[in-house]
Amino acid sequence: MSLSSQPYKGTRDYYPEDKRIQNYIFNVWRRVSERYGYEEYGAPTLEPLEVYAAKSGQELANEQTYTFTDRGGRVVAIRPEMTPSVSRMVAARRQELAYPARLYSVANFMRYERPQRGREREFWQLNVDIFGVDTIAADAEVIAVANAIMKEFGAKDKDYVIRVNNRNFINLMMSEYLELDAKATQAMIKLLDRKDKISESDFTDQATAIVDDKSGERLKKLQTLLRAKNIADLPTDIRTSLPAVELEELFTILEQAGVKNAKFDITLMRGFDYYTGTVFEVFDTHEENSRSLFGGGRYDGLVGLFGAEPISAVGMAPGGTMIEKFLEVHELLPKLTSTTDIYIVVLGDVQKAADKLARHLRSEGVNVELDITDRKLDRQIKTAVKKNIPYLLFIGEDEVKSEVYTLKDTTSTEEQKVGFARIVSMMRDRRRVTDDDDILDLE
Amino acid sequence: MSLSSQPYKGTRDYYPEDKRIQNYIFNVWRRVSERYGYEEYGAPTLEPLEVYAAKSGQELANEQTYTFTDRGGRVVAIRPEMTPSVSRMVAARRQELAYPARLYSVANFMRYERPQRGREREFWQLNVDIFGVDTIAADAEVIAVANAIMKEFGAKDKDYVIRVNNRNFINLMMSEYLELDAKATQAMIKLLDRKDKISESDFTDQATAIVDDKSGERLKKLQTLLRAKNIADLPTDIRTSLPAVELEELFTILEQAGVKNAKFDITLMRGFDYYTGTVFEVFDTHEENSRSLFGGGRYDGLVGLFGAEPISAVGMAPGGTMIEKFLEVHELLPKLTSTTDIYIVVLGDVQKAADKLARHLRSEGVNVELDITDRKLDRQIKTAVKKNIPYLLFIGEDEVKSEVYTLKDTTSTEEQKVGFARIVSMMRDRRRVTDDDDILDLE
Repeated sequence: MSLSSQPYKGTRDYYPEDKRIQNYIFNVWRRVSERYGYEEYGAPTLEPLEVYAAKSGQELANEQTYTFTDRGGRVVAIRPEMTPSVSRMVAARRQELAYPARLYSVANFMRYERPQRGREREFWQLNVDIFGVDTIAADAEVIAVANAIMKEFGAKDKDYVIRVNNRNFINLMMSEYLELDAKATQAMIKLLDRKDKISESDFTDQATAIVDDKSGERLKKLQTLLRAKNIADLPTDIRTSLPAVELEELFTILEQAGVKNAKFDITLMRGFDYYTGTVFEVFDTHEENSRSLFGGGRYDGLVGLFGAEPISAVGMAPGGTMIEKFLEVHELLPKLTSTTDIYIVVLGDVQKAADKLARHLRSEGVNVELDITDRKLDRQIKTAVKKNIPYLLFIGEDEVKSEVYTLKDTTSTEEQKVGFARIVSMMRDRRRVTDDDDILDLE
Repeated sequence: MSLSSQPYKGTRDYYPEDKRIQNYIFNVWRRVSERYGYEEYGAPTLEPLEVYAAKSGQELANEQTYTFTDRGGRVVAIRPEMTPSVSRMVAARRQELAYPARLYSVANFMRYERPQRGREREFWQLNVDIFGVDTIAADAEVIAVANAIMKEFGAKDKDYVIRVNNRNFINLMMSEYLELDAKATQAMIKLLDRKDKISESDFTDQATAIVDDKSGERLKKLQTLLRAKNIADLPTDIRTSLPAVELEELFTILEQAGVKNAKFDITLMRGFDYYTGTVFEVFDTHEENSRSLFGGGRYDGLVGLFGAEPISAVGMAPGGTMIEKFLEVHELLPKLTSTTDIYIVVLGDVQKAADKLARHLRSEGVNVELDITDRKLDRQIKTAVKKNIPYLLFIGEDEVKSEVYTLKDTTSTEEQKVGFARIVSMMRDRRRVTDDDDILDLE
């Protein structure tokens, strides 16, 4: 009996054409993160399960982790998210690190969710986190990085919106303004989180049940809140509260920083239990893909769980699959070719000379695939075209003698006779254009 | 009770200074693989355990995997190596792929080994594989890539040696020349594999027991074989066998290709059960680190296990920890600074102007960390120096007015007054030198 050739359930194989897209996304993530002074780190694939049980939320820790007991009796989980790991790392070097610590990673995670389109059980995320800044400037910076990432992908202002709220503001609204107890608060948060997914009348019915107020006063208050599109629209006593003032300050900084897509959203909750202040979410405005792309927020309490003095933190985590889908619906995915520049097609008994030429080109930084199969011309060409390699270089006895080669663009009928130095400079120019698109010309 | 801040047993946290080294290694791997026309792919972290049980070797599959039963009752393992996964992927698209398929990946793996210096339970490997070439040219190419990687790391010919053998040759030697049965063959292979680790007399005693030949004829034959430093030194009947002729051809191609470090090693075995022809190993010659760095070989049968027609394959897998150790003992690790180019030190009430300058620099591709903490000058500088950021840029009220800034090299006392355009071109030049060290000048 033979083994299955299919990937393990809920996971995905990345063939070169898929990996190209993933690498394009990863490169944008890395480039923008580094441009803001964030440095890359790495964390283990496994963590003790208790790390997630503490603050990630019950559903994630209990139902969605890939958990097992190792050969040493330790209960471990394949990481379902990065925030606890990076918090643990900061706690371990609480004294030694330079603050503010700006950290990023590109890593894979697993969650045992029902596999569905655009949601895989193994997925990749960028994590961007800043530690050690307790002012709103840090929240603004992380949102600015989120915005810069969207822009670097080619997104326009109309393509997405950044919804912003604040956990302290939510708590204040629930306890002091709506006068809800802890249980009712939880229920209301859950309801608000689902508001977009249910009908207006369902929402009103459920809200009425939760506020449990015969006078109808609380429901009226809730409706007033929900009508607020800006902090300025809020009732005075709420608007002058500390969390609301902080939110207003955040929007001011974001506006100064050229972030035009951020807007207050009183219904935004975000799932993780560890958030303690600002929460935000980048939302796709495309009508066929109207959904949350990724989010983040402030979590000042997490580092303190690992035996260190607490330290303030703000972070976010865009996922690869969501971004890929966004790029697809907005037609923002660039045409990606192979990383190989040239496929050398070998005609006749010149393998040794072809190998020498390939090595010589490689020593000049050109990516060269050399045919070593002794096949017919058309089959060699077919291989290169199928792989999306931009250039074919033909070498036969004449070329070995003359040192002039035919270079053919696989995407057109264009071909030219070229010498070694010309090939190298052509490929170098091509690479500069492809790699350095982050380095713009000076005005 | 607080959670432990230490990484899970046998795994490692990569802080930015560690990740820099890892990224340096990964970049060399990627650069060289792509230079030879290999394209990147990705595979899942989990595979069904049976994938390894088939051919990876009993010890690895049964004792060294992180195995568990998932919520759907499937017995899975965190991948301990890549070869079965990439073979599965090729099998799944046997018909569609372009051949020769040249594939590479940089990925993490886990093996439940006793943690020890230079051997972690979670580790990173480059995997380079070529599918669809049944001639020795493919074996030679993979060895040439291994050699190019060592050279790209700055290794000299004397720093390492590439040991080469052939499984068919080993089988022939055992069955036809030494006339050993299957059981004795296995024992002899194991003994040869440990030859370097035991004394001469221990080896002779154990070999005598295995060959079980009162005449002493077989032992003499074995000793003759072991004295052979080249194929040419072998007894005639062995030397003219197909595997020996193939080995000789391999050495000829390697010599032509400028690989000077490959040598025949009759004791080289390599652990995996799936090897079917050439096996090789890059060995560190440094006296304090005399050990195998990585290896590879031909495995023509693996794709066929996944329900597809068999397809020939040659591959190899250097590991990150081994390479890092090699670079250390040979003093080949370059000085690595932060990916951040500039740390902007903010003096006085100019945060808004500083933010604008930072954004402007970033839009020109400069990596800029901006201080947003309102701290004293010396504390801001300390942060940048601790992070190994190469330049400080000071901005205060005067600089905002004049648009001329003080730029200070953190590694020297050098500082200069510069305008925006000059900063950008300086950083751009710096980046070119760092990033493009693979693109050499034309002679």
